[in-house]
Amino acid sequence: MPVYSISHVENVRVCVVMVGLPARGKSLIAQKIVRYLSWLSIKSKCFNVGTYRRKLASPTGADADATFFSPQNKEGVKYREEAVQSAIKDMMGWFLDENGVVGILDATNTTRDRRDQVLRICRENYIEPLFLESWCDDGELIRQNILDVKTTSPDYIDKDSEFALSDFTKRIEYYKDIYQTLDASVDKNLSFIKLINVSSHVILNRIESYLESRIVYYVMNLHIKPRSIWLSRHGESEYNLTGQIGGDANLSERGWKYAKKLPELVLKSLGPENQHTNLTVWTSTLQRTQQTSSFLPYKKKLSWKALDELDAGDCDGMTYEEIEQQFPEDFKARDDNKYEYRYRGGESYRDIVIRLEPIIMELERQENILIITHQAVLRCIYAYFMNVPQEESPWMSIPLHTLIKLEPRAYSTLVSRIKADIPAVSTYKEKGTSQLGESDGGNSVRSRDLLKGDQTK
Amino acid sequence: MPVYSISHVENVRVCVVMVGLPARGKSLIAQKIVRYLSWLSIKSKCFNVGTYRRKLASPTGADADATFFSPQNKEGVKYREEAVQSAIKDMMGWFLDENGVVGILDATNTTRDRRDQVLRICRENYIEPLFLESWCDDGELIRQNILDVKTTSPDYIDKDSEFALSDFTKRIEYYKDIYQTLDASVDKNLSFIKLINVSSHVILNRIESYLESRIVYYVMNLHIKPRSIWLSRHGESEYNLTGQIGGDANLSERGWKYAKKLPELVLKSLGPENQHTNLTVWTSTLQRTQQTSSFLPYKKKLSWKALDELDAGDCDGMTYEEIEQQFPEDFKARDDNKYEYRYRGGESYRDIVIRLEPIIMELERQENILIITHQAVLRCIYAYFMNVPQEESPWMSIPLHTLIKLEPRAYSTLVSRIKADIPAVSTYKEKGTSQLGESDGGNSVRSRDLLKGDQTK
Repeated sequence: MPVYSISHVENVRVCVVMVGLPARGKSLIAQKIVRYLSWLSIKSKCFNVGTYRRKLASPTGADADATFFSPQNKEGVKYREEAVQSAIKDMMGWFLDENGVVGILDATNTTRDRRDQVLRICRENYIEPLFLESWCDDGELIRQNILDVKTTSPDYIDKDSEFALSDFTKRIEYYKDIYQTLDASVDKNLSFIKLINVSSHVILNRIESYLESRIVYYVMNLHIKPRSIWLSRHGESEYNLTGQIGGDANLSERGWKYAKKLPELVLKSLGPENQHTNLTVWTSTLQRTQQTSSFLPYKKKLSWKALDELDAGDCDGMTYEEIEQQFPEDFKARDDNKYEYRYRGGESYRDIVIRLEPIIMELERQENILIITHQAVLRCIYAYFMNVPQEESPWMSIPLHTLIKLEPRAYSTLVSRIKADIPAVSTYKEKGTSQLGESDGGNSVRSRDLLKGDQTK
Repeated sequence: MPVYSISHVENVRVCVVMVGLPARGKSLIAQKIVRYLSWLSIKSKCFNVGTYRRKLASPTGADADATFFSPQNKEGVKYREEAVQSAIKDMMGWFLDENGVVGILDATNTTRDRRDQVLRICRENYIEPLFLESWCDDGELIRQNILDVKTTSPDYIDKDSEFALSDFTKRIEYYKDIYQTLDASVDKNLSFIKLINVSSHVILNRIESYLESRIVYYVMNLHIKPRSIWLSRHGESEYNLTGQIGGDANLSERGWKYAKKLPELVLKSLGPENQHTNLTVWTSTLQRTQQTSSFLPYKKKLSWKALDELDAGDCDGMTYEEIEQQFPEDFKARDDNKYEYRYRGGESYRDIVIRLEPIIMELERQENILIITHQAVLRCIYAYFMNVPQEESPWMSIPLHTLIKLEPRAYSTLVSRIKADIPAVSTYKEKGTSQLGESDGGNSVRSRDLLKGDQTK
């Protein structure tokens, strides 16, 4: 019998249809939803109509400026229509041929005609349409989004900043003329979420399936304040020295050194102007993470069961060599599919993701959090922020005695790694061997760790 | 360091202010929120203004009929004002003296004047007001709620049905005259949830704290369709025979007998008219629950990690006698506070509640579910539906070879227990001893199990 997480209860496929003027954060929301659902093993993909339009129109130069978006520009209308149709066609193909579960149509979809058309195609294909509108009249928010366009929109990569600003503003005006917002009366039969000024006011209509309600809850919890997240494994433990996994050992002498140095690493990562930034510290319930947090000067320290290390069940307290000898088949099965493999009486990486889900939701709500946890748990959290595929995440190297700082940005997450320069054993086990790597003291980054999006400073 | 669940991140106190005409399900929603939050260890209490009003006015006979609720009835207005003031005063006292976290003011609060007054008092006491309106124009829903009044409202206990109906309808009319619904423009500075026709349309405004967002999510997931929930432990296992806890043993011979008989018990519980009701079966990932489900004719069977038995950590596979001998201090500590006690390397009842929370949320969304799980997990699920206090829930007797059927009703949950009449060992350990009870074969119900609200048929 397959094991179900809360996300797999129904046999529902959802098409999230974004709605809103340009510069309302639609693409950002769409990409976050895809990242979140993918992390939960729900097959999701974003279909950005702008990308299709650029493929079609940009080589001809037709979309070089805002006039392309005028409803009076017949050529523009034709290209844009073609782009939408291609995106929808690809999405429906993806649902059908690749068993997609949540597809996102990332476009303005500002007219009721357009939305009716998407609705009809969804219904024909037995896909639930969920409209997600980002509506905004907060001048400052819009201004900020327009300013970001130079750095985020592929349309203005090689263009002058001033041109980008004025042209983009013009483009928005063209859309405004024809924009029909989602309305509780007119659209009362649609399933929709309407976010007003990010999520200060939210209107939900006919949210029925569990999958829809998860998307709603996630979107409700997003905020756009700038913040950072710090991640660290506990300092080297006595079990690390003997190569044993699991347990609840104390820090080794070098582990204590790391704990003492950690406050300094955090200050270094904050930079000279932000030395007084107040962090909240989250640890697991195990001694080695709490000991590692003990010298941090921050008042708010919370310990979470959900941050405890992967439960190795019957193998708790054993070395990899012992596991290989005593449970050779399990040892091989784990190497073959480390994400799914569940220790006898213990957990798999997938199990950790399920118990981490509320932690991720809370992280989305919070501002500056420093998490001190364990190798497998840290891999899962890192995978969420860095969009690392599940088959790779259990093999990432997250060395001891290294502080990782994540800075979520609109379309990627910046990563910095601050090394303590305190030697530690390696706890990294290569596939197909029970041997652990050389001691690296947090001073080396493995090549497999330089994943897409990991812009290690 | 105390262990935090997701519910304890902030130091926020919330006053949920119900808003809506009579017969809109306000009290039902209020009581469900209290039950849910209490189960999550969040101290919550409902203050029903009707109860205060009855204490003041009923002895004088002033509130004998609907005219009491006319805005023109000066005596009525005076009594009702006094009732509201007493309820608010008691609630504020409860926040202050008893460290209450979520208080619910269950009253109509239909005018903006009244709401402004509550708002002011909340702000003076540093309590976050969250307005929760139930708005309804679905004639059938209202009719059903009005019909329920005879059975649910203490105002009509000794009254004739017809009088109750017409009087209550009149009362609603008095409120309608002065009703001001929550409005996105006028009330834009308030935190509010507006449920329109249960939750087919939901408006959220300024939901900011985590606690508020949990309440919103829970309320969004409630439905009012009638349904039942069936609970069963797995059949007797080989470990049960030897008195060992944990593990992943097979069913014993008698356990298999129970598995074979379970389909018949379910049919019996459905009654002659509902033999074709389709159930969904949920099990844990452990063999004994899946074996127990194997003869059930229902197509949809899901296995959940979150339904696995309490993890006994280092004590997994031991008998209570062995635990008492090897870990005498732990053994005593567990008896002293069984809800909080966490096995070395394992879990506490509180930990189970945290991992069951998504299961409970999903149960609220679903219709007919049969859950086959384990003693401790079943106690926690039962405690949620039956509002059993945490200190009692780990001591409830849930015998083997017994099917429990829960039928949630507006103000209570009906329970029936259907016994298989197949002998099984008792797995019930009394406080202060390592001995298990006598074999009861699911044929006896312990007195301590007859808890308030458990209307065992």
